[in-house]
Amino acid sequence: MRQIAIVGLGLIGGSLGLRLRSLGLARVIGVDADEEAARRAAERGAADEVSGDLGRIGGAEIVVVAVPLERTIAVAREAAARAQKGAILTDVASVKGPLVSALAHLPEVRYVGGHPMFGTAGRGIAEADGELPAGQPYALTPTEETDDAATQTLVQVIQQLGMRPVLLSPEAHDRAAAEASHLPYLIALALSAAAGVDAREIAGPAFRDATRVAQSPPDLWMEILKTNRTHVLAALDAFGASITRTRDALARGHYQQVVRAR
Amino acid sequence: MRQIAIVGLGLIGGSLGLRLRSLGLARVIGVDADEEAARRAAERGAADEVSGDLGRIGGAEIVVVAVPLERTIAVAREAAARAQKGAILTDVASVKGPLVSALAHLPEVRYVGGHPMFGTAGRGIAEADGELPAGQPYALTPTEETDDAATQTLVQVIQQLGMRPVLLSPEAHDRAAAEASHLPYLIALALSAAAGVDAREIAGPAFRDATRVAQSPPDLWMEILKTNRTHVLAALDAFGASITRTRDALARGHYQQVVRAR
Repeated sequence: MRQIAIVGLGLIGGSLGLRLRSLGLARVIGVDADEEAARRAAERGAADEVSGDLGRIGGAEIVVVAVPLERTIAVAREAAARAQKGAILTDVASVKGPLVSALAHLPEVRYVGGHPMFGTAGRGIAEADGELPAGQPYALTPTEETDDAATQTLVQVIQQLGMRPVLLSPEAHDRAAAEASHLPYLIALALSAAAGVDAREIAGPAFRDATRVAQSPPDLWMEILKTNRTHVLAALDAFGASITRTRDALARGHYQQVVRAR
Repeated sequence: MRQIAIVGLGLIGGSLGLRLRSLGLARVIGVDADEEAARRAAERGAADEVSGDLGRIGGAEIVVVAVPLERTIAVAREAAARAQKGAILTDVASVKGPLVSALAHLPEVRYVGGHPMFGTAGRGIAEADGELPAGQPYALTPTEETDDAATQTLVQVIQQLGMRPVLLSPEAHDRAAAEASHLPYLIALALSAAAGVDAREIAGPAFRDATRVAQSPPDLWMEILKTNRTHVLAALDAFGASITRTRDALARGHYQQVVRAR
């Protein structure tokens, strides 16, 4: 059986561990420096063995670094130094460009950037969930320098997880993530703020759907927005221009234009 | 047992009928001029008796007009002429100001404006659903001229349906609906349009949540936006200003400001 190490047993690492184990796809070595998180991950069954010691990843064929974005580069470098020669190293951070640049040339391992789209409404092992709707996207961001066999192995594992591998360049990923994830978060914040007391009283399913992500931890988002600032600004500009066109069409009474895809 | 007539057996009328009957709250007289809709509503069990003839509502204590917004005033006037003297007349249209002005003074009936928040992702009896999450809001918009007992009877029925009555002036309702429902629809359209091919490929739960309502029928929305234009413009302006502040804070690198509730 394949051995997979997961470094960081929070929402994403914990969910991956639970799912790998419930499907019997791998023996999971879990590592978390936070004792409490490690204890709870062990209780939840997110790994076959849980440790605070990064040295334990040495037997793993695949190492998944699932720590917060701002610590990903540092932890991935440490993990590369402890991994077996030729191991596949991947991460789960929401922004890929700067990470792929920093990690592409680690000599010990074969790095492939990754980003499973689990949603970001929660945080920590308590929110981890081994059940996922089928076909959730899992982005991989190989470059010309990435080892093909490493990418293909990850594609296979992702498919076995019941997720859908999507291969994109780091640049294309970051633009897509700005449009599909980072912009929707900022919109949800602004929409929540625009709604008065009465609006909250009568808010139906559409409003709750549109603002759910605004509840997610702001400190995670600050790091994401900082790291992906250029793409998020471009997405905000395109969206803002679209809202202005909507406003103008409505003011002029051009209702067909208002509801036409902008 | 109370007799309730529902005129228009589409998504909302059909759902109300199914729910009233499954909870055993009333004998439901269903009326729909569209033969096919009437037949399917009868098949679904949305009413105890289904007819194309508005004359059948004469025995009902409460008459719910659940036709599309643009036909609500005309159909409500016809229904008032066929209803028993003193019957409670209500409607389900998403905008209340112009309707309440037009219907408040019908001599035959006691009119109370209503707006159940069922969501608007579908249309027609096929999408009707007698199951609802508990506590969905149901707005009522009585004015100083509205008969108090009529309002109280509707409050009681709404509570028996497991929904949550929210009493607002027609003006406050229309502002709240612009913020909580009509603005989110326009945002969902703009957000969908701003997302490129790669963004759609990797779109996770937050994006799907935020854009779901964009799939709902544009012709329904055109009428709503036309009827509630002033409030929707105000909501768009407030939201647009918030997006501009977000953009400026991000451009300046003031990340705390970006994620702070705007």
